[in-house]
Parts: sequence; structure tokens; C-alpha cells
Amino acid sequence: MTDFILAGIQFEPVLGDPAANIAASSRLVREAAAGGARLVVLPEAASAGYMFADRADARRHAEPVPGGPVSSAWAALAAELDLWIVAGITELAGGKVYNAAVLIGPEGHAGTFRKAHLWNAEKELYDRQEDGFPVFRTPLGNIAVGICYDAWFPETFRSAALGGADLLALPSNWVPVPGQPDDVPAMANLMCITGAHSNQLYVAGVSRVGTERDQPFVGRSLIVGPDGWPLAGPADGEGEAVLLARVDLIGSRAQRLGNPFNQPLADRRTDVYRTGDFRPGPPEGAV
Amino acid sequence: MTDFILAGIQFEPVLGDPAANIAASSRLVREAAAGGARLVVLPEAASAGYMFADRADARRHAEPVPGGPVSSAWAALAAELDLWIVAGITELAGGKVYNAAVLIGPEGHAGTFRKAHLWNAEKELYDRQEDGFPVFRTPLGNIAVGICYDAWFPETFRSAALGGADLLALPSNWVPVPGQPDDVPAMANLMCITGAHSNQLYVAGVSRVGTERDQPFVGRSLIVGPDGWPLAGPADGEGEAVLLARVDLIGSRAQRLGNPFNQPLADRRTDVYRTGDFRPGPPEGAV
Repeated sequence: MTDFILAGIQFEPVLGDPAANIAASSRLVREAAAGGARLVVLPEAASAGYMFADRADARRHAEPVPGGPVSSAWAALAAELDLWIVAGITELAGGKVYNAAVLIGPEGHAGTFRKAHLWNAEKELYDRQEDGFPVFRTPLGNIAVGICYDAWFPETFRSAALGGADLLALPSNWVPVPGQPDDVPAMANLMCITGAHSNQLYVAGVSRVGTERDQPFVGRSLIVGPDGWPLAGPADGEGEAVLLARVDLIGSRAQRLGNPFNQPLADRRTDVYRTGDFRPGPPEGAV
Repeated sequence: MTDFILAGIQFEPVLGDPAANIAASSRLVREAAAGGARLVVLPEAASAGYMFADRADARRHAEPVPGGPVSSAWAALAAELDLWIVAGITELAGGKVYNAAVLIGPEGHAGTFRKAHLWNAEKELYDRQEDGFPVFRTPLGNIAVGICYDAWFPETFRSAALGGADLLALPSNWVPVPGQPDDVPAMANLMCITGAHSNQLYVAGVSRVGTERDQPFVGRSLIVGPDGWPLAGPADGEGEAVLLARVDLIGSRAQRLGNPFNQPLADRRTDVYRTGDFRPGPPEGAV
């Protein structure tokens, strides 16, 4: 059997307090493991919080990966509990600082993803990655990673799927979106739903709660199946949550490619798409 | 002032009865015009219905564009009412048959779009287009067109936006999607919402109701603003609907590019995306 339990852990990391974050995340990963989880996704910037004042502040709270205190604690936990962890981390690498996520397995560090689309003031805090969307092969299936604002770009889901990913793990710190109506699900949730459906890809969008330096976060973590429908969540916007969903990354591959109602990957028309940079101005090919 | 009223007209075209479809669509376009509409979007295959038995049946119900009976009737209406119409039509062109949509202005035919992504049995009924997503320059703004299943491909919205479109008009015949939960909006609506938000583009997703040859259609037409939130609709799944929304395609351009919370077009990372055809198999760039 290739199915297993995937967990999403929504909690409230504390700015500048890695020890508190190790304690809270470990407590919740243990809870997920007690529920049978083999893969656990934590929020963005779960090591040291998010709202750094400036680049120097971000650097002060960054750690090398692997080997830093928080990722080492997660590696010890993954080994002890025999599971995989994807978690947001502030990474220091050769003098550069990245908004990153680690993939850690029972045998240790397995990969690092660095946020591709830096949001808002992040452009001043972090270095720009050049690695795109690596796909990590694991015994549970092929895992790609995005972080928060990456989900606002359908190219993130597409790049993951075209690279052979079965799951996009999406550690996030979702914030309120202007104009959000009460009767429409959170835009972040909709990005996960349509991204999953268009790519026949599992998506684990795991966000945080609480407020840091006047920036509120909205929670709403969810796990979405490859047809786009939620398997667990969305969680509420207030508290901790351990979402559990039974998934089958490897066993569902054939079915995901062969839905009789649509084959969103095979039906693409790469011969006619525009894919370049956006250039404001008169319309291209206008009539 | 560059704002105007955009209308979406949900109705029930009749299979094989162009005269009935001219009558019903004209009645509803007049109703939209009475509400002030300057641009009216009708469903997919509004000229002769949709569930053709085979390619010969589709061809029998196709008409040349411009000059065929239905598009000529719409052109007369557009001239009389001084408005623009986007409507799905079964097009006969040089021996080929297309699932198409016409753009008609007060001065007549202004453009034709042919569905880029043929859904399901459509691959056997229609010819394949090679034109991509043209952007039509009008006094109301720049208009791109997609048809139904095209919205399942984020490249449709992206190609429209990168081509300079302000609006994606999306004549559709939306059908039930397997597994649709009661507490999540229709997947088609979510595609419009996320496609609009990711591209800062207006989207008019206009669908039909009724059943043809055992195929039910779900209605749910809606008009979405460039922030992704619905301006009108979604309509229900049963009856006719004339949706009206005040929009400003031209006047909103600067604002759409410069939302302080995100600049989804400028922030793209075209240097790291995968954009090619999907090749099932071992993951690319796996670690």
C-alpha cells in the first residue's frame, strides 16, 4: 500500500524565539504522529517568526541548513518518529538569507526550497533564489515545495506538476486579502483548490495564526486532493490545528492523469501560450 | 469616463434551432441594453446548441463568420443597440468546424476566437485552432476570449493578460464537476476568481442552463473584478439571468498593475518556470 496520512500543522510561531518554536512545533508534530502521520507540513518561517524589521534582523534570525538549531531539532524528531517534515525556515547560506523551507526525512535533511516569489517587503529582506521548483523524490512520492505568495502564481503549481511532483507542500503565512467577501472562501484556499485541480496534484497549504508587529495572519490551512476538493480543513483563523488526511501520492498517479472528464496536463496547448515577461503597453497581437 | 456596464446573459440555447436562439438571445440582450449594458457576453455554442451527435452533425449546424444567420442577427442587434457582443458560435470556415466565439461591435464583426482546449468528445467534433489568444482592441478596452474548458488552464488567463487584455470574456457551457462539495463554490467559478486575481484581469464567465441529450449544464454565470472578487453572480443553476456589473477596463489599468499587496504580473519568475509539455515519468530535476 502506498497511501499514508499527511498532516498540516497550523500554529503560531514566536518572533525571535527558536526555542519556543521548536517546543511548539515538536509538540504538534508528535500529535500528528500519534494520529498516524508520515508527512507533516508546517507553516512558513516556523523557525524564528516572520516580521523581521530589516535585512539585518532577518539575518540575525537565520540559521544554516542543515546543521542549525531548529532544523537539527526537526531532524531529530523526524528520525525518532520515522516521518517526513516540510517546514518554513529562515536560512543563512554563504552570507545570503533566504525565506526557505526544509524537507527532512527519517534519515535527515533531504532538500531545501527557497521561496521563488518574494512578497512585498520580502524583496528587501531576502536574497533571490535561482533554483526554481526542485522535485524531491521520497518513498512517499515526489514532493515539490512552494511558500505562501508562490501560490499566487499558477506557474508554481504547473512547474511542480511538469517536474513530476505528486504533492505541492506550501508552508505559508497567509495574510488578509483586501476585499475578501464573507461568502467566498479565502483567496489562498482558492489558489490551492484551483492549483490542485488544474494540475491533478495534491496540495498542502499550511498557514499560521496570530499577529506579529501589527501583521495578522489568517490560518485557514487545508489539504486538497488532486481533484481540487479539500480533504481536510480549511482550519479556522484563530487557533492551532492538526489537519490529517489520507493520501496516496504514488498509487493515484495513473488515475490523476486519466480522469475521463479532463486531462489538464495532457490537454495543454503549449504551442499557443504566451509565457514571457509582462510588458505593459499596447496589446500584443491586437486586432 | 471609461467605465461602463458589462452584462452576462445566462440562458438555454436550443439544440439545432438557430431561430429560437436568435429570438431568446435578442430578447435578453435587449434587456441588458435596457439596463445600460455596452458589452454583453453570451454562453458557448449559443447559435445552435452544443451536444452534436458527431462531426457531421456539428458541421450541419455551423455557419460562416461573419455572414451566417446567427452572427448577422447579432450584428444587426449590436448596431441597433450600439453595444458589443461576445457570443459562442459553431463556426464553419473553409471546410473546418470550430467551437468559436464572435466579438461583434456596433459596426459589425470585430474578431473571432476559436476554443484552444477542446474538451472530451469535442476533440472529435471540432478542428484544432492554431491562433492562440488574440487580444481585440475596442473603445471599451482590450478584450481576450476563452471558451469554457479554456478556463481550466491558467495559461489562458495568463496569455490574455500578457497579451494586454483587460477582460477575459469566457462563453461557457459549464457542466457538473465530479465530487463538487455543497460548501465550496462551483469549480468553474473558482477558476474565474483565481484567474482574475492572479492576472488582475476582469473575467466574465457566462454559462448556460438546461439539459441537452442527457448532458446537464450548471449555469452559475458570474462577472469577476480584477481583484478576483465577484461583481455580479454567480447566478443560480436553473434559470435565465441577466448579470450587470459596472466595470472600468481602461481606467483601472494603472491600479491593476500597482496593488501594494502584490503585483502578480510583474513579480513573475519567468527565469525559473517549467513551461513545456507534460511528460509522465521520473521527476525532472529530482533530488
